[in-house]
Amino acid sequence: MFQTFTATSRPEQGPPRLARLRAELAAEGLTGFLVPRADVHQGEYVAPCDERLSWLTGFTGSAGFCIALTDVAGVFIDGRYRVQVRQQVDTQAFTPVPWPETQPGPWLAEQLPDGGRVGFDPWLHTAGEIAAIEADLDGTGISLVPCRNLVDAIWEGRPARPQGKAFAQPLENAGETAESKCERLAEGLLKAGQKSALITLPDSLCWLLNIRGSDIPRNPIAQGFCVLFSDGRVALFMDPEKLVDLADLFGPLVTCYPQDAFAPFLANLTGPVRVDKASAPLEVSRILADAGVEIVYETDPCILPKACKNDAEIAGTREAHLRDAVAMVRFLAWLDAEAPKGGLSEIDVVQKLEAFRRADNALREISFETIAGAGPNGAIMHYRVTEGSNRAITPGDMLVLDSGGQYVDGTTDITRTIATGPVTEEQKACFTRVLQGMIAISRVRFPRGLAGRDLDPLARYPLWLAGQDFDHGTGHGVGVYLSVHEGPQRISRISHVKLEPGMILSNEPGYYREGAFGIRIENLIVVQEAEALGDGRDMLDFETLTWVPIDRRPVAAGMLSGDERAWLNAYHAEILARLAPRLEPDAAEWLAKACAPI
Amino acid sequence: MFQTFTATSRPEQGPPRLARLRAELAAEGLTGFLVPRADVHQGEYVAPCDERLSWLTGFTGSAGFCIALTDVAGVFIDGRYRVQVRQQVDTQAFTPVPWPETQPGPWLAEQLPDGGRVGFDPWLHTAGEIAAIEADLDGTGISLVPCRNLVDAIWEGRPARPQGKAFAQPLENAGETAESKCERLAEGLLKAGQKSALITLPDSLCWLLNIRGSDIPRNPIAQGFCVLFSDGRVALFMDPEKLVDLADLFGPLVTCYPQDAFAPFLANLTGPVRVDKASAPLEVSRILADAGVEIVYETDPCILPKACKNDAEIAGTREAHLRDAVAMVRFLAWLDAEAPKGGLSEIDVVQKLEAFRRADNALREISFETIAGAGPNGAIMHYRVTEGSNRAITPGDMLVLDSGGQYVDGTTDITRTIATGPVTEEQKACFTRVLQGMIAISRVRFPRGLAGRDLDPLARYPLWLAGQDFDHGTGHGVGVYLSVHEGPQRISRISHVKLEPGMILSNEPGYYREGAFGIRIENLIVVQEAEALGDGRDMLDFETLTWVPIDRRPVAAGMLSGDERAWLNAYHAEILARLAPRLEPDAAEWLAKACAPI
Repeated sequence: MFQTFTATSRPEQGPPRLARLRAELAAEGLTGFLVPRADVHQGEYVAPCDERLSWLTGFTGSAGFCIALTDVAGVFIDGRYRVQVRQQVDTQAFTPVPWPETQPGPWLAEQLPDGGRVGFDPWLHTAGEIAAIEADLDGTGISLVPCRNLVDAIWEGRPARPQGKAFAQPLENAGETAESKCERLAEGLLKAGQKSALITLPDSLCWLLNIRGSDIPRNPIAQGFCVLFSDGRVALFMDPEKLVDLADLFGPLVTCYPQDAFAPFLANLTGPVRVDKASAPLEVSRILADAGVEIVYETDPCILPKACKNDAEIAGTREAHLRDAVAMVRFLAWLDAEAPKGGLSEIDVVQKLEAFRRADNALREISFETIAGAGPNGAIMHYRVTEGSNRAITPGDMLVLDSGGQYVDGTTDITRTIATGPVTEEQKACFTRVLQGMIAISRVRFPRGLAGRDLDPLARYPLWLAGQDFDHGTGHGVGVYLSVHEGPQRISRISHVKLEPGMILSNEPGYYREGAFGIRIENLIVVQEAEALGDGRDMLDFETLTWVPIDRRPVAAGMLSGDERAWLNAYHAEILARLAPRLEPDAAEWLAKACAPI
Repeated sequence: MFQTFTATSRPEQGPPRLARLRAELAAEGLTGFLVPRADVHQGEYVAPCDERLSWLTGFTGSAGFCIALTDVAGVFIDGRYRVQVRQQVDTQAFTPVPWPETQPGPWLAEQLPDGGRVGFDPWLHTAGEIAAIEADLDGTGISLVPCRNLVDAIWEGRPARPQGKAFAQPLENAGETAESKCERLAEGLLKAGQKSALITLPDSLCWLLNIRGSDIPRNPIAQGFCVLFSDGRVALFMDPEKLVDLADLFGPLVTCYPQDAFAPFLANLTGPVRVDKASAPLEVSRILADAGVEIVYETDPCILPKACKNDAEIAGTREAHLRDAVAMVRFLAWLDAEAPKGGLSEIDVVQKLEAFRRADNALREISFETIAGAGPNGAIMHYRVTEGSNRAITPGDMLVLDSGGQYVDGTTDITRTIATGPVTEEQKACFTRVLQGMIAISRVRFPRGLAGRDLDPLARYPLWLAGQDFDHGTGHGVGVYLSVHEGPQRISRISHVKLEPGMILSNEPGYYREGAFGIRIENLIVVQEAEALGDGRDMLDFETLTWVPIDRRPVAAGMLSGDERAWLNAYHAEILARLAPRLEPDAAEWLAKACAPI
């Protein structure tokens, strides 16, 4: 079982640790220290040795940070975690701070006198992040001071850096050799007059070298760094224990060094060196600057090529989705049989769904903690069930189920909302509006050159007409056997990255009524060149990757336009055609009913 | 009759004038001179004395410019004017240059050697415009040199500056006294620490002082300048001949000076002075800088308050639209009776429509040259019929008719596309998609804080699905008895100005098939606070201002959703209710049929 349901936080551990941190502050002559949730790779999931924020405060959320001062310690958390933080931290010792409404700079200016010196570990913060805080501190007399990591200094028994084995991603799945990728990107460096580019994001590194790893949960990445030179050579910084299975993989282009050799290596580089301000640790820029090496700030060169999946990656992803759909359909058939009996809990659902996915030996991992929110829990956008919150599913609850799998050929992410019994007309109307938004994105065709922000309103229009909306983006990028949240493309009001063929996105409008119910429907889609029509305009559209029926019971069919109804029926017919041959008779029979036209 | 149909251009006049301009270049030691279409106020329409571009080149389009060098003269024109420019200018002497694809900086760099000196009149170009060209010239050794106007120097018989009488805009229409507006804006200056703001846009000036004028066609503005001080006082620079009717209008807050006193007055100001880089002449900044007066570049303070119409302005606009609708309906009834007989031309249509508008004595002006494009002419987005292009309307032509009126209480702008006989199924499908986009904007409700770019895709979605689109924005801002094109708000992919209650916009999706037919349907709408619904979200929507039936004959009713059909039928029912009491029996009878449900 990948997922666990225990709340790991013990609020009482926080205050003594905070006291020890303050002793370190005094020893360093500092008035504060930043404790981010991020690790040196700025990833969404971190290894146990990097769980500094939860070790210090008790707060286990996936985003946030702490600023420990001599007499106050702020825990900055966003809207998702306002309730959770009060359960997990000792609020006598730690003060929850609403973020991003309150930014660290203004908060520091309010808390500290002129002359305040706030330390931070320059390996754990990007140049962009520190520059933003410093801009807010301008004129206050308060300064940010890079220093050793004061949490690590007091963390007895801190786990070692993960040493998960790296392994090769087969060429049939990667679709392009590492040599070809390195050459292609090196050409770009050469043209831009850059001698090398630093790559500090593990998923960039893994994509570039066609490897995967097992350092952290959910994301099959191998942590490390690399330097790509403009002649196509690569210096890889990864501990040798992790590379034992890869001895013969790399050709002469790749030279391996231990991870700790990265910092000293930087000082010997010849500039200009390309550094991504949004992801590289500030320390990297400091080392280069100290050594007099010219820095050019520009996006990690892997980001865009990685986002535009090649034919092999798309073909693999299609197959992973069909495999995942088989597990989902078996699960949904089981749920339909069991839910009306009562007695099911959210944890039961998560466990059963994971069991169905694991029944296929191809599952390597789940791609994130399954969200299974019944009734009012469904209205908590990023709900993760624990033994404490676990709700008995009452027939008639709307059950929001957001989950996914990591397969060698693809990463899946799917949300279905199930009516576990009769639902109200109002719930049906809301469900149908969400479905209409999701269909609008599925059907869209759009001129090449548009970005996610140009499509986002289409997913909201049916809700808007009813005075409703949802407070998250419509979709995020997705990797191929990599991170389930992968940039740079998104379908969001703030995303201006042009959509290009091969980009995989989620399409997941929702609706959340606090304290009552939630709805979200999510398919993955991939950008492709649209079939040419009469006007000959250069247009793109989406191929759907997810093939799992959408619950027809909460659909208010009368609200659908003819085109929307046709889309839904065609989608269900296609599901039946694709999945029935892969299913045993019982599940196939359930599927046929679930896919009947409306 | 306001509109004329003669092509005023005489290509043979260009070459001798260009020769004389080149003699002036030599005398000034210059290698080139910029001849913009704009006047000192950067307006869309200019007075005869400011028609320098057409005087020199023959080109009469509403946008573009000429750069005259010693051996080549480029006429920069956008996509609308590619054909027209070749008919109007002598291409032996003048070279059409596709713009904005080719920008003046790179073009100059290609044409001129290092050391080239290109003169320009600093009253006719904004600081932003010159800075953009200079940025492109960086490193080329070519410089822009402010100088006297060399076209004016050779233009014998150049008309005098217009001296149209200014007149008061009644308070019942303006809805707020000039004193109140000045005080309100002065408070903003005071808060920002600005001593004064320069206002060089006539529509800003007219709005601020509740006056209108008659200096140029189509826009009832009075040209001039003013300085608003942070204590609410105003220095108005406008020739006394224009102000004779306003002797008692202005209170002690306004001091009047002749227009030519503006330049010397600037040097005596105390800074900081607020200057709008996007609209103020560069010369203004030069004078201030030379005098050591501090400049703060910020938007003209009238722009946003002017855009958010008050209750009186909206009420007036509603009434102006009903009055305009009566003329439109009488015209449409006449057209339906006459078109099947054959023999009508585009000019007939323009003249008849203007006659119906003039029959109501409230019409002060048309708000722009009527676009009446039949058949293939309908596909030319900014078509303006001349005696040369005038097409006989063949029954079955789609007729695009875009027109509007200036009334003391409001400015109208409406497009209807009329099927003058049986049209094809394909034309019906295109018409219906355009209508669906127009209905989508009419119906939308959206969270406060969004901009026009967040709504623009909704107008295109039905066309996109068919691989179609239109190459203009969905809508522009509109004034109240001021310019029919008024910023800053727009419904366009590039418009990030937040929509606010009171902003009037056009909603005019279209479809253009070159050489075949065009379609555009346009209503004016005004942003308002939406009725609160269950979720209590703070949302806005649009009130429709235009009440003229949309031709039902080219509607493919089967393509409409239930909601779209309901909108159309409700719209037509409302038109009938509002207009029938204002119409004579024949027109009312026609209207009843035109408004029958589908």
